[in-house]
Amino acid sequence: MGTSLCDLPAVELRRLIGTRRISPVELLQDCLRRIEAVNPAVNAIVALDAEGGLKAARAAEAQVMRGDKLGPLHGLPVGIKDLNDTAGLRTTYGSPMFRDHVPERDERVVAALRQAGAIILAKTNTPEFGTGGNTINDVYGATGNAFDPALSCAGSSGGSGVALATSMLPLCTGSDTGGSLRKPAAWSGVVGFRPTPGLVASERRRLGWSVLSVQGPMGRNVADTALLLDAMASVDSRDPMASKQREPLALRRPLDLSSLRVAISADLGFAPVAPSIRRVFQARMAAVAGDFAACVEEDPDMEGIDRAYRVIRCTNFLAAFRKYYEQDPGLLGGNTRGNYEEGLRYTLSDLAEAHAEQTRIYRAFQDFFTRHDLLLLPCQALTPFPKQLPYPTEMEGMPLEGYFATSGITYGISMTGHPAICIPCGRDEKGMPFGLQVVGPRGADGFTLDAAQALEAHFQALPELARPIPDLARLAGGSTRD
Amino acid sequence: MGTSLCDLPAVELRRLIGTRRISPVELLQDCLRRIEAVNPAVNAIVALDAEGGLKAARAAEAQVMRGDKLGPLHGLPVGIKDLNDTAGLRTTYGSPMFRDHVPERDERVVAALRQAGAIILAKTNTPEFGTGGNTINDVYGATGNAFDPALSCAGSSGGSGVALATSMLPLCTGSDTGGSLRKPAAWSGVVGFRPTPGLVASERRRLGWSVLSVQGPMGRNVADTALLLDAMASVDSRDPMASKQREPLALRRPLDLSSLRVAISADLGFAPVAPSIRRVFQARMAAVAGDFAACVEEDPDMEGIDRAYRVIRCTNFLAAFRKYYEQDPGLLGGNTRGNYEEGLRYTLSDLAEAHAEQTRIYRAFQDFFTRHDLLLLPCQALTPFPKQLPYPTEMEGMPLEGYFATSGITYGISMTGHPAICIPCGRDEKGMPFGLQVVGPRGADGFTLDAAQALEAHFQALPELARPIPDLARLAGGSTRD
Repeated sequence: MGTSLCDLPAVELRRLIGTRRISPVELLQDCLRRIEAVNPAVNAIVALDAEGGLKAARAAEAQVMRGDKLGPLHGLPVGIKDLNDTAGLRTTYGSPMFRDHVPERDERVVAALRQAGAIILAKTNTPEFGTGGNTINDVYGATGNAFDPALSCAGSSGGSGVALATSMLPLCTGSDTGGSLRKPAAWSGVVGFRPTPGLVASERRRLGWSVLSVQGPMGRNVADTALLLDAMASVDSRDPMASKQREPLALRRPLDLSSLRVAISADLGFAPVAPSIRRVFQARMAAVAGDFAACVEEDPDMEGIDRAYRVIRCTNFLAAFRKYYEQDPGLLGGNTRGNYEEGLRYTLSDLAEAHAEQTRIYRAFQDFFTRHDLLLLPCQALTPFPKQLPYPTEMEGMPLEGYFATSGITYGISMTGHPAICIPCGRDEKGMPFGLQVVGPRGADGFTLDAAQALEAHFQALPELARPIPDLARLAGGSTRD
Repeated sequence: MGTSLCDLPAVELRRLIGTRRISPVELLQDCLRRIEAVNPAVNAIVALDAEGGLKAARAAEAQVMRGDKLGPLHGLPVGIKDLNDTAGLRTTYGSPMFRDHVPERDERVVAALRQAGAIILAKTNTPEFGTGGNTINDVYGATGNAFDPALSCAGSSGGSGVALATSMLPLCTGSDTGGSLRKPAAWSGVVGFRPTPGLVASERRRLGWSVLSVQGPMGRNVADTALLLDAMASVDSRDPMASKQREPLALRRPLDLSSLRVAISADLGFAPVAPSIRRVFQARMAAVAGDFAACVEEDPDMEGIDRAYRVIRCTNFLAAFRKYYEQDPGLLGGNTRGNYEEGLRYTLSDLAEAHAEQTRIYRAFQDFFTRHDLLLLPCQALTPFPKQLPYPTEMEGMPLEGYFATSGITYGISMTGHPAICIPCGRDEKGMPFGLQVVGPRGADGFTLDAAQALEAHFQALPELARPIPDLARLAGGSTRD
């Protein structure tokens, strides 16, 4: 299986559409062919609107030919995580309760993508209500890793990560509470950006003043991801965290790495990270340390964050699932129910302490960023585990408890609300993709994207650090869905 | 007792200082004379640094004479609520535990005022830890109303309100959780502005992502209040709610009332408001309704806000007072201890429900503001009660429970995070000051100030609605402190 139209970057595809070199119909058909060839092996795309997509592509083609003003995503097929409501396209949230749920309306972010010219072609798989570090549910089953379909693609935006890695789609949406778009990006060798809370405003957030849960863009490179972010972002004030004014996201000027003071941390000083991942991280950092103005090992002070995260995240579950739990706890899957029941055991005192601790950690992190421009750390604590496991119970000999035991290196950052991006950075010791997490200063989404793009260009020039590409011919060989 | 220098507006005083018409020393001495004459009757100022103030005034005078560049508050004496840390000036928080507490350092906002040229002359009285709707504590006793020292001046920024009403100081700081700077402004016939959370950034907020507690400016008119706000505001990112960029607060252009669509609500649809206050409010609104583009009676949807507020506010108490309560509950006063103990009875589920309800109410309020530019409502639910009562247990025949039972009309607005200002609007049926609360759209602090200033100018032109002035000669007649 050779390189095809659908393997091109989204930015390039948009340029080719705008200059009439390719037609949106041609691109859509190429994506559909790739989906047909590869998806049976990985089960990343779980609902498809081929007919509606073709109709939209024909309309998009006509607009190009008429010389209409075109949106920034004009004619690009986009995958939507199955947690986002899509008008007329099945949206299950990975829950059997919603097996046949077809929303009447797009949620805001989906409508914004349509408005920007995107073609809403497919839904991508997610664990039930996004609750899990592996993409498996009772509606659609498990999504396989693009580099070894027997292994996990991580979660909860696993379907989006794998759809991108295999070029079934050029752009996909994700969301992130404790790492849900960064971790699948890492194991798919693609890019996932967790923006500042409020930048991608959502009218559906139940807890308006929480920083934990955000929506964000995923792509195969930083420029594509930024293109999608621009269309997802909004000042819609139904989200109380939304900015009052839209700031330009990035100057999009090449950023000089040698001007940056960089801190590196293998584990934020508290998070479980497998020895093999530490080795890979240290080796990668050693290879690039000399390219920065300064590069020092320093862990931010995150003492007490584990307990604080446990309590604060449960608030989301209590706010979202009471109706179902009180009707019948069996309506909820194991991870979701477990979180809900853990939440029932906490008091308001626990929350007060957790929120105060989160505030203290935030202030310490702000102080950290007075000394450093960027923080670099791994994006996954381990190499992919078998996809049928709900979550791993050990990691290279270290026992683990609960599905988010390995997520400290990502949820630590969620708790402070700083922007963070996962970019591909070669392979780990097992040959699976290794993702580097780049954390920027408070509110500096554009700077973080620019810095990540400069790092990405640097990595692409070094064979050991370049983005890994899955073996599509092998995936196209047959279904491994089980 | 005739009008004196200290009775002039702060904006005018600053102009006179900048143009060398008056000296900061002369102004300070006039303030000290007024304090000496009037404070014994009202007990609003509870710590005074006359010597340090004079020294600072002489230095300020020298700077003027040298032609130095002067800050926006250059030479103006400022009163600081006794909850704010002031270097070298006793700061008790109204608690006997801190009876002799002299901070080593200014907190950020105080340092900012000093930096802007203000003279930190005095501390103003507050109930213990700001917990109360009346300004009374076991360190300094009660503060009396400027219009009748036997009555309450409200709280918790009561000392600041009374110090302004009596012209002991031209500007004072306040703070507000459920109305703590709006309610004393109302009963003192002065102005208090509750800004958007984060605009006056604080490094001391224990719960970083809460919208309830803010600091804000108080003055005798809107322009003075805006002058102080400009100096208090900051993008200091130790406060996670701080804006990334400082926006201009106001165009300071005269705003045309006839361009505004105004909603009026006597009680936000849920709050207890005394019949006599309703009558005054309706009469005042009838007098000005014709001056707007539109003026309609409409209550925002705040269903469920009472319970949500009760729970969420307790989080603050649990985060702040655990250390003392666990050592000895008797270290805390009745209001504070009561809140803490109420908090101990709530669960994380209660908080999740309250936060979700707050978010729903916020969204409904945003929708309300698509139809209206401003919301006008009373700022106090009742006329002042005797100052020795911790709080009233009935209101014109309506039974009341707890010290914030009458605060619905102010805490309803705190819960959404919208900017709100109290401006004087004549007197109530008992001849005490009546305050009008003006609520602006989300984040529109500058617009809200401009609108309030236009209303103020309109009111000042109508004898019934003008700012009431206390009888200073009577106050100077002798101490009523008890």
